[in-house]
Amino acid sequence: MTMKEQSTLKPVSNAADVYPSRVYPEPKLISRTDPVVYNHSIEQPVINEDQLAFYEENGYLFLEEFFDESQVQLWKEELARLWEQNKHEKKPEVIREPGGDEIRSIFAVHRDDEVFKQMAQHPSMQAIIKQILGSDVYVHQSRINFKQGFTGKEFYWHSDFETWHVEDGMPRMRALSCSIALEDNHANNGPLMVVPGSHQIFVSCVGQTPENNYKSSLRKQEYGVPDQESLKYLVRQGGIVAPVGKAGSVLLFDCNLMHGSNSNISPDPRSNVFIVYNSVHNKLGEPCSGQKPRPDFIASREA
Amino acid sequence: MTMKEQSTLKPVSNAADVYPSRVYPEPKLISRTDPVVYNHSIEQPVINEDQLAFYEENGYLFLEEFFDESQVQLWKEELARLWEQNKHEKKPEVIREPGGDEIRSIFAVHRDDEVFKQMAQHPSMQAIIKQILGSDVYVHQSRINFKQGFTGKEFYWHSDFETWHVEDGMPRMRALSCSIALEDNHANNGPLMVVPGSHQIFVSCVGQTPENNYKSSLRKQEYGVPDQESLKYLVRQGGIVAPVGKAGSVLLFDCNLMHGSNSNISPDPRSNVFIVYNSVHNKLGEPCSGQKPRPDFIASREA
Repeated sequence: MTMKEQSTLKPVSNAADVYPSRVYPEPKLISRTDPVVYNHSIEQPVINEDQLAFYEENGYLFLEEFFDESQVQLWKEELARLWEQNKHEKKPEVIREPGGDEIRSIFAVHRDDEVFKQMAQHPSMQAIIKQILGSDVYVHQSRINFKQGFTGKEFYWHSDFETWHVEDGMPRMRALSCSIALEDNHANNGPLMVVPGSHQIFVSCVGQTPENNYKSSLRKQEYGVPDQESLKYLVRQGGIVAPVGKAGSVLLFDCNLMHGSNSNISPDPRSNVFIVYNSVHNKLGEPCSGQKPRPDFIASREA
Repeated sequence: MTMKEQSTLKPVSNAADVYPSRVYPEPKLISRTDPVVYNHSIEQPVINEDQLAFYEENGYLFLEEFFDESQVQLWKEELARLWEQNKHEKKPEVIREPGGDEIRSIFAVHRDDEVFKQMAQHPSMQAIIKQILGSDVYVHQSRINFKQGFTGKEFYWHSDFETWHVEDGMPRMRALSCSIALEDNHANNGPLMVVPGSHQIFVSCVGQTPENNYKSSLRKQEYGVPDQESLKYLVRQGGIVAPVGKAGSVLLFDCNLMHGSNSNISPDPRSNVFIVYNSVHNKLGEPCSGQKPRPDFIASREA
């Protein structure tokens, strides 16, 4: 497969949907039919064959201290600047904590901020992503998550792909997230937890999607929430891992990996930057929900 | 000091209160003036000198797999029975999750349940407690905490003594808690976190206590909450430790140790039994808040 190969995927139609969700009265577990790694011949110097195999099997890869301190420092300064600038800003890109007024996330930082635009284009990251997705890529979504000390709330378990598929019309599983830690993560400040191997199963969720769901779901998700029995099944199979390490560490994870995090009452904030890359062969179609697409700052259609 | 020595402590009066809280407009850090270990000469075969010294310095002691599997199994069966029995029970001893109807705690199990009465009187535990508190003891409070999988919420940082002192009139720091794990605890199911060494500092909290505060505070504490600056100070000094281990493990901790826990979105429940022992020389006086004492199921006056 070459980087220039054109997409053969059609826009998602409900009839032929291989990953239906929010349509059945009961949850279903559906086996993944898409590859996890799209190019197995190593074509970059950043990750090796073992790391690629680990990613394929587990659905994630943790790269400890991937970026050095001085780089992280620059990003943290920019983050502090953005936090100040957006403290009282009322714009859709700025999401606040449920039941509070503190900033939880700022979206589209790869589009609106020069520093994070460069981060998203970082050659080492691009090289890994293109290796895994086997094609050119574009940024589907980016955001900074501020998980404040003392008050940071949990993110419940979810597969990103479920939402991107249903609400954004992402056709297939050919996307991944990079979470770049801007603070040290440790077991007690609510680190991201993943269920290894869960990327191989699609959990078809129950419940329809209300119009403009994103306005509340970015604060607290209520639709596209996997059921407890399915989660128990996945955790029995794969356990739970919370990769933690110093600021500058990078966690790569497949778009269908089940993940979440507990609250953070420790004094230590846990801020990170999420950048989601999608293959150029996997551009968005019509949302499976039949509703109008979510805004561009959540799901880019300008690829 | 002998076990029979009579108390010389007077009931707490606001004027001479060495641990004032909820009375000043600003938080204060007050040095502890009470011993942590009241009897240093080893008089039991259960814990040794090193363990006692660890407790004194850090304010807690973790005894891994202190009770064996068959014992734990019996307690778990009783817990399951109590859970079923109280599912729809409307009585003050049964506390439900904030914003939900699931049981969070059942109080006074040492009083109302034969099995847990025996647990509270377990000779090995009694021996340790009497060693540390240097006197005969009685159960000040007991409860089962059910931290459900998926939905268990956090307990914010607090010193138990602060509440017992202000709301129950416990005169001095001569009490401790035993948390007996009835499920395996691991880093990801919201284990109890402690701040080692924090038992040496009393954080005087801000805000008055409303009448009948306990009715809401057992679900979600809003008074007697330590301020963020004080917590940062304590954590800078001592860090955060989350002692985890198999079911049957026991965590002993001083009444003034700062502790809390994050939420639990993992499928694994985290149930434990809390038993608080108080020295017979430290019986409750008038609550410092000037309000009427909390009910007996929260703070026993029948010692």
